[in-house]
Amino acid sequence: MTAQPTPVDPPQLHHNPAFAQGMIVPAGPTLYVGGQNGTDNTGALLDGLGAQTEQAMRNVLAVLAEAGTGPENVAKLTIYLATGVDPGAAYAATRSVWGDRRTAVTVLAVTPARPGALVEIEAVATLAGEELE
Amino acid sequence: MTAQPTPVDPPQLHHNPAFAQGMIVPAGPTLYVGGQNGTDNTGALLDGLGAQTEQAMRNVLAVLAEAGTGPENVAKLTIYLATGVDPGAAYAATRSVWGDRRTAVTVLAVTPARPGALVEIEAVATLAGEELE
Amino acid sequence: MTAQPTPVDPPQLHHNPAFAQGMIVPAGPTLYVGGQNGTDNTGALLDGLGAQTEQAMRNVLAVLAEAGTGPENVAKLTIYLATGVDPGAAYAATRSVWGDRRTAVTVLAVTPARPGALVEIEAVATLAGEELE
Repeated sequence: MTAQPTPVDPPQLHHNPAFAQGMIVPAGPTLYVGGQNGTDNTGALLDGLGAQTEQAMRNVLAVLAEAGTGPENVAKLTIYLATGVDPGAAYAATRSVWGDRRTAVTVLAVTPARPGALVEIEAVATLAGEELE
Repeated sequence: MTAQPTPVDPPQLHHNPAFAQGMIVPAGPTLYVGGQNGTDNTGALLDGLGAQTEQAMRNVLAVLAEAGTGPENVAKLTIYLATGVDPGAAYAATRSVWGDRRTAVTVLAVTPARPGALVEIEAVATLAGEELE
Repeated sequence: MTAQPTPVDPPQLHHNPAFAQGMIVPAGPTLYVGGQNGTDNTGALLDGLGAQTEQAMRNVLAVLAEAGTGPENVAKLTIYLATGVDPGAAYAATRSVWGDRRTAVTVLAVTPARPGALVEIEAVATLAGEELE
C-alpha cells in the first residue's frame, strides 16, 4: 500500500483525462477541508466567477499546505457552483490553479449560503507521511 | 472490530428499513467514488430518469468492483437529483440496482453540472480485506 | 497524534470564530451520519425552520452518541438549507444545539428531497477511543 491516493478507472466507464472515477486513499489521518468561497484574507469576496473560483481553489490549497499535505493527496473535490454559472468556465478556472492532477470530483449547481458567492469548493485529503505502519 | 460497515440506528430516531441513520466503517483504506451520471461507456447520457438513475448506480458499483470492494462496504451514498425530478421514482430506480442493503444516505435536489443529467450519485466505501492488523 | 480532531486555520485565510477551515482526524474507525431532517421519533417533520434545524442537529448528535462518539470528534458538518431559507437564522439554530465547537463546515442552499423539509444536516466523525495503536 503506497502513501499516495490511487485513481480507479473501470474499463467499462468512459475515461476522462481530467478526473478519476474513484480514488483509493491509504489508511491514515484524514483532512477535511470545509467549503471554501472565493474570499481574500479579510473575508471579502473577489469579483466575478473566474477570480472567485481561482481564489476558492487557492484557499483549498492553503488549508492542505497548512496541514502538511498537498493536492497530490486529495481523495475528492466537490465543486459547488451557483445556479446559472457556466460550468465550463468555472471548471477551467479550477484547473488553472489545481493543474492536471486527476482526482475524484463531483460538480453541482446549488446556491452557496453566502450571498454573492458564485462557487464553493471542499476537499478530503489523506495526510502523506503520517500513515500508520 | 469487524471489517464490515455497521449500521447505527438510535432508538430515538424513526427507523427506516431502506437506510441507516449512520454507518461505522473500520480503520483502513477508503475509496471515494466521484459523482456518477447515467452515462454509458462512450460517455453519452441515457434517456430518462429511470435509465439514468439505474446506470449511475451501475457506474458506482463498477468503481467499487474495480477497487476490489462492493456495496456491502459502502459507508454512505449521496444521491443528487435534478430539481423537479420525482424523488420517489428516482429512489426506486436506485434500489432496483442497489438492492436492500442499508447504508447512510443523503438525497438532495440540485442541478448536476452536466447538461441533461437528471441524477448524480457518489459514494464512500471502505476496502474490505485491506484493514490494518 | 492525539485522538481528537485538530482544526486547521491557515494564516492567509480569514479567521472565523464559528468554524475551522479544515479538520484533521487521526487514523481510525469513521462514522458517516446520513442526512438528518428535522423529524421526530415518529418520522414527522417539525414546524418551521428553527424547530426543524434544532431537531436535525439533535438527530445528528443522537447518531453520534449511539456510535459512542460526540460532537468533539466531528470532522465536518454539511448543512443543506432549502432554497430561500434565511441562512443566518438556520445557522443560529444549528449553533443553539451544536454549541461553540469549531469544525469544518459547508453550508449550501439546495432542496432536501423530502417534501416540506427546510434543512438537512450530515456529518463525518472519528470514533474516539477506538484508534489503532
